[in-house]
Amino acid sequence: MSLISTIAKQAASAAKTLAVLDTQTKNDVLKAMAQSLRVNKNSILSANQQDLANAEDNNISAAMLDRLTLNAERIDAMAAGLEILVELDDPVGIVRDLGTRPNGINIRKMRIPLGVVCMIYEARPNVTADAGALCFKSGNAVVLRGGKEALHSSMAIAEVMHGVLEQFNLPKALISVVPDPDRALLMELMQQRQTIDLIIPRGGEGLINFVTDNSKIPVIQHFKGVCHLYVDKDADFEKALNLLLNGKTQRTGVCNALEGLLVDQAIAAQFLPLVVQALAEKDVKVNACQQAAAYFEQATILQDDEFGEEYLCLEIAIRVVDGFNGALAHIDQFGSHHTEVICTENTNTATKFQQAVDAAVVMVNASSRFSDGCELGLGAEIGIATTKLHAYGPMGLESLTTEKFLVNGDGQVRS
Amino acid sequence: MSLISTIAKQAASAAKTLAVLDTQTKNDVLKAMAQSLRVNKNSILSANQQDLANAEDNNISAAMLDRLTLNAERIDAMAAGLEILVELDDPVGIVRDLGTRPNGINIRKMRIPLGVVCMIYEARPNVTADAGALCFKSGNAVVLRGGKEALHSSMAIAEVMHGVLEQFNLPKALISVVPDPDRALLMELMQQRQTIDLIIPRGGEGLINFVTDNSKIPVIQHFKGVCHLYVDKDADFEKALNLLLNGKTQRTGVCNALEGLLVDQAIAAQFLPLVVQALAEKDVKVNACQQAAAYFEQATILQDDEFGEEYLCLEIAIRVVDGFNGALAHIDQFGSHHTEVICTENTNTATKFQQAVDAAVVMVNASSRFSDGCELGLGAEIGIATTKLHAYGPMGLESLTTEKFLVNGDGQVRS
Repeated sequence: MSLISTIAKQAASAAKTLAVLDTQTKNDVLKAMAQSLRVNKNSILSANQQDLANAEDNNISAAMLDRLTLNAERIDAMAAGLEILVELDDPVGIVRDLGTRPNGINIRKMRIPLGVVCMIYEARPNVTADAGALCFKSGNAVVLRGGKEALHSSMAIAEVMHGVLEQFNLPKALISVVPDPDRALLMELMQQRQTIDLIIPRGGEGLINFVTDNSKIPVIQHFKGVCHLYVDKDADFEKALNLLLNGKTQRTGVCNALEGLLVDQAIAAQFLPLVVQALAEKDVKVNACQQAAAYFEQATILQDDEFGEEYLCLEIAIRVVDGFNGALAHIDQFGSHHTEVICTENTNTATKFQQAVDAAVVMVNASSRFSDGCELGLGAEIGIATTKLHAYGPMGLESLTTEKFLVNGDGQVRS
Repeated sequence: MSLISTIAKQAASAAKTLAVLDTQTKNDVLKAMAQSLRVNKNSILSANQQDLANAEDNNISAAMLDRLTLNAERIDAMAAGLEILVELDDPVGIVRDLGTRPNGINIRKMRIPLGVVCMIYEARPNVTADAGALCFKSGNAVVLRGGKEALHSSMAIAEVMHGVLEQFNLPKALISVVPDPDRALLMELMQQRQTIDLIIPRGGEGLINFVTDNSKIPVIQHFKGVCHLYVDKDADFEKALNLLLNGKTQRTGVCNALEGLLVDQAIAAQFLPLVVQALAEKDVKVNACQQAAAYFEQATILQDDEFGEEYLCLEIAIRVVDGFNGALAHIDQFGSHHTEVICTENTNTATKFQQAVDAAVVMVNASSRFSDGCELGLGAEIGIATTKLHAYGPMGLESLTTEKFLVNGDGQVRS
């Protein structure tokens, strides 16, 4: 049997053990893993040094180097992440009653793990611990296929987790790292639909498209985040400016940062001068429609079909729109089904916006930066889905489970 | 633009209209469609005559001919099916509160349609009406790609439904029939992931595999139904015999029929003679393990690796197993994740079985034949998923929807 199909089969077999493991034991394992990550900090850091040395030889970008770098604080944060999972409710085994049919059979649904989850990601060694632990708590085995840049670090982290699994007499195959980043093996991995239930790619749009195009296993897709703030004619300008600055500048390289500001025509003349000042103070580069651009000293003019870019830096697109319907039309054309925000004091307009906008998260008077699993109260998140099957938006523990039907009768048959 | 991408784009555009349509109007449309199917019975039947004439020229099988044939009663049943949907709760717009975060933002989830659902099926003209109506009630546009055998019938049914959509000023593209059963067009259809959200194939395992292998759009998979009845040592024998006969003989060509009987070693000598008599009365052909075969006059002996067949006729596989764990091991190896049944009076054993068995529907003392959307109280069903992503088991209206997050604040930003 090939390396890949052996890994996938062992994971599927191990998943059966985990599916029926009680919550207390799962939490004990997570606590022990957190502790063990702290104790074995030095071995993880020395593996990370190997990855960093290779990275420098290969001239990788500063951003990737930053994602790749571990230090004592980052390992402590990983450990703390595992301890947060301990506090979260275990979704597995939760039963809901759907009632009793006229013939007397009772129908319920019980939440169960998916089985085997495969993560495909780039140079982030922390995904190994985060995804490993999220899958573990939700009762799933995980197959981790990270990029070659972080391989030594990932293997070292997995080794620490394996040590704890062995202490608890649990199979190491519950958390498997593909030890060879070869592309042919990745292709083979994505064909294992007899044993792997779900693939979650984390990375740029290129990676997501590559996995979607080549996988025979269902894929959770997280495309880009082109999030807008629409400032309605009934907006509180002070709130609007706060939401704009927080969404655009609090952290720029993330998918829930604001990339577009839509301003209602009716208030453009009052509001845009305030925007000019606020963005200038934060050195935000402005791209704008002809009408909005007139307010700025330096703005690149965008034509009607040039909106929709994910800047991921201190840069924004601004457009004056023809009221509510103009905002909806813009979001429909350029939005990415991630997060859309309206600022308004008019509750009718707010409700209409939340109903009409097709995005995973639709907000009223709140910063787009809250669009993540932790801020929404899901605990940790394993990804954010921007397509609608299975999950839409930030995915927590529950998104790593499904439900089976339980039917209880007293000998009933169908006539 | 090609025929297929035009159909898919028009469906996606029409879906936006439907997503915000109120329940009352949707129900009025469904009632009018039911009425119109009855009024236009003759035009549908004459289109069906064309399909039947072609079918005879092409020597199709008797089973397929039966599925293809429409008559007045079958059209009445189609219309009645639409009226049942009127009575079902509309899942779209249902909101659940996930609570308020420490910073004061409130988190809710709202149920929304998926968008565009594509059905790929064989010679069943009734799927056109059933799936068309289920998707309509759940707020989804549907693209119907049936087999060439039923094309005239499907087009005639769709034409009746289009007439009603037009009366209500709704786009015909909400229910689209691909007018050409060419395989290249089917391949093209399965690539439209910008506009189609979900594909549901209905047909044999060959069709499901073909669609899964070639689709770039998520696919709901319904593989075969190899359902077992496990008769535990604490079973009530009379109930067990009733469940066996009902599961195996009430209707044989369906995925929720029993294909296997597992008998606890501890009661084999008492129970199997009763099985011999019961199955003989119904002329059920028996395939059995060596030990079970000894009780039957004529039984084909199956080796340990020869179980797991989906007979779909008056034929069954019988195996004596080493108690509860033996039953689990057999189901694990040969089950199809569809429906598994235990017959026992021991509630501990029943609970353990329902926890441990990995199937979409796990039953205690009830016939496997109840494993369908209607019998489980979902109303109609659009399919039965035997894989776990998005839906597992019979899929009703709710399975054709997803949820978006609604976040309401008062100007909160992230620090």
